[in-house]
Amino acid sequence: MKIPEILLVETEHKPGSLASVLQVVGESGLLVENLNAVRRDQDKTVWELTLEFDEAVDLSLIDRIDSLPATRVIGKSDRVFDRHRGGKIETVAKVPLTSVQQLRDIYTPGVARVCLSIRDDPSLAREYTNIANTVAVVTNGTAILGLGDIGPLAGLPVMEGKAALFWHLAGISGVPVLIDETDPARVADIVAAIAPGFGAIQLEDIAAPACFEIEEELRRRLDRPVLHDDQHATGVVTLAALIRATAQVGRPLEECVVGQIGLGAAGMGIARLLLRKGVRELLGADVDERAYARLEALGGRRSALAEILATADIVIATTGRRNLIPPASVRAGQIILALTNPDPEIEPVVAIAHGAAVAADGKSVNNVSGFPGLFRGALDANARRFSAAMLIAAAETLAAHAPEGQLVPDPLDRGTHRAVAEAVRRAAEVG
Amino acid sequence: MKIPEILLVETEHKPGSLASVLQVVGESGLLVENLNAVRRDQDKTVWELTLEFDEAVDLSLIDRIDSLPATRVIGKSDRVFDRHRGGKIETVAKVPLTSVQQLRDIYTPGVARVCLSIRDDPSLAREYTNIANTVAVVTNGTAILGLGDIGPLAGLPVMEGKAALFWHLAGISGVPVLIDETDPARVADIVAAIAPGFGAIQLEDIAAPACFEIEEELRRRLDRPVLHDDQHATGVVTLAALIRATAQVGRPLEECVVGQIGLGAAGMGIARLLLRKGVRELLGADVDERAYARLEALGGRRSALAEILATADIVIATTGRRNLIPPASVRAGQIILALTNPDPEIEPVVAIAHGAAVAADGKSVNNVSGFPGLFRGALDANARRFSAAMLIAAAETLAAHAPEGQLVPDPLDRGTHRAVAEAVRRAAEVG
Repeated sequence: MKIPEILLVETEHKPGSLASVLQVVGESGLLVENLNAVRRDQDKTVWELTLEFDEAVDLSLIDRIDSLPATRVIGKSDRVFDRHRGGKIETVAKVPLTSVQQLRDIYTPGVARVCLSIRDDPSLAREYTNIANTVAVVTNGTAILGLGDIGPLAGLPVMEGKAALFWHLAGISGVPVLIDETDPARVADIVAAIAPGFGAIQLEDIAAPACFEIEEELRRRLDRPVLHDDQHATGVVTLAALIRATAQVGRPLEECVVGQIGLGAAGMGIARLLLRKGVRELLGADVDERAYARLEALGGRRSALAEILATADIVIATTGRRNLIPPASVRAGQIILALTNPDPEIEPVVAIAHGAAVAADGKSVNNVSGFPGLFRGALDANARRFSAAMLIAAAETLAAHAPEGQLVPDPLDRGTHRAVAEAVRRAAEVG
Repeated sequence: MKIPEILLVETEHKPGSLASVLQVVGESGLLVENLNAVRRDQDKTVWELTLEFDEAVDLSLIDRIDSLPATRVIGKSDRVFDRHRGGKIETVAKVPLTSVQQLRDIYTPGVARVCLSIRDDPSLAREYTNIANTVAVVTNGTAILGLGDIGPLAGLPVMEGKAALFWHLAGISGVPVLIDETDPARVADIVAAIAPGFGAIQLEDIAAPACFEIEEELRRRLDRPVLHDDQHATGVVTLAALIRATAQVGRPLEECVVGQIGLGAAGMGIARLLLRKGVRELLGADVDERAYARLEALGGRRSALAEILATADIVIATTGRRNLIPPASVRAGQIILALTNPDPEIEPVVAIAHGAAVAADGKSVNNVSGFPGLFRGALDANARRFSAAMLIAAAETLAAHAPEGQLVPDPLDRGTHRAVAEAVRRAAEVG
């Protein structure tokens, strides 16, 4: 997968000097993600130039920039690493501790009476602990981002990122839980054993097909909400985008033929939700034979890449394979969501140029928009599980909050997350 | 066990009115833990009267107070419960989130490069996540305070209390982990499976003898510090108190005959540390036959209550049994630590009155003084385990920081906790 790397490039104050650098970058076939001046001296500027590389930086590019007149690469920026330094989250006390009386109230002996009240009525834990505000962010590291099975510890920065987003966007305490185990039954056992301390469980970046078994088993065993983010939060945000897109083209979603390329965690989460929303014809294709039984159990139909591209009104790709969709195969008026991050199956601009009515990628149709409000709503409702009605309510609320001409709302808009939470809470209480 | 309950008592502004209330309380055999005026009107005062009860409040006491002239119990104070409302801890973001660039740096796509750096060099997790600042506070709820096996959820207020103390006293993120399992081997498996996400593991309020097996197994399997608080933090604080007490009586600790009554988690943790410190003669007594094999394996000697009281220079009681030590059995010059909370085996004032040179209970000799600095030091040293040298260094530092005439320092003094952490860190790096 493509990952940003940030070069520090020093140029002379001379018209065209920056353009020369960007031309060299362009000739290397690299996209510029960001560019900003970080230092400006009397006759020189240092630029922070964010480019997308594969794992390693192309050293020949650095040589070519260095060979430009009065220009040199002075190093790499630590901006991204600096933002992770020391971690992105921490657990803090909400109560003061400045006197012995406070110590005696929040710790022994005072705490004993609070413990006894919960022993006698476990529902009081919601009132006298932080549990109703806590989500375990659980991974075993088998499918971290697009990086694959890099193990739980290497996935911790992502889990801390989720927890930071939970805090900022929904006021939830997200607690990373790394599980050193890959067998699905044992992962489920471990999560079930530690579940009593958390208000809800978010499964995160666990590879298919293990993720299906783990989630199903936990939903069966636990009395609190469990959600595999990669399946269902992605499903929610995709449904929101399709509600908007079909409104734009003036055709009811339920009547469209939906074709899904890729039936892993994200693909199955999307398929499940679209069928619940009423989509009548849903075709699916995957390189893994085992995927079809799962799809057909939901009510989808086995298909193939070519048939989907040739017949579907809506094409949704979640394959992990860059440029899988040939531009020439795009048909006029199609809606195309190519959701593999960061390199989609077809670039939205290319799809539009070849006749698609609406096209988007996973940078905009991203589960960041979905999971904070979903969990806030479920916790606030004291829901025992996430129902289809809760997921659909979240999607409809996201669609309603998307600005004119956009498929999804700004992911940093707290008001949207609050509205999603409220809709999910209401749906939970009805269902 | 005795637990505080807070009555709100209204009295008239009249000399002697408060004394009458306290006399009724005294006649009921109850101790006053605290008393303060919470409202003062023109002719009346409302008092928050904190008393220690068994589980339920004695209603006849309320009737007797109500029958005093112009005096009535107007209810119970919610002060302790109010301090627990909504929980005592939360997990928050340390990074800001106000721009899309920040989102792209702390979450996808920027986080991917941080993940890869940790995949390639796992030690970088200490730098780019919060792990080196994180302790899992693990319980299965089988021995919560003196309340016994009340289950993990009812123990959560205690775990949140520990986490709040970790934060206030050592800047550590304490993360409560409740385990719904009592079989020691399975508890160890579950803790081992989730250990990768934490810098260290604090086992808390797990009943003996399961606690010994769980801790031993985890120390064997994990490459990070594991400490059963009830054993070893208690051991550290007790050793500190004995260093002070023996200095006061002018006799080296190593030469004293130590007698321990009660060989559960706390008793065994104390025995282990005293023997490591060089105590040559350590006698132990317990009602559970199985305890003696453990004691003898450490180098202690099987004894009995009567022999200990009759021969030991230092008596340490950790039995859970109030008033177990008959005042008449106290010998002149003995050091007596009666550590059962909140009701000791003998009240210190009674022991002193009967000739003890030094006496204390578990309210002052409490592991609050020990565990924050122990973990801070172990994390800062990146220690693989807690060694005896680290525990002894902590005890010696606590002893050095106790004010003149006291056995242990003020538990809220941050400077002491920093000094303990520093001593533990140095001991870890030497050892």
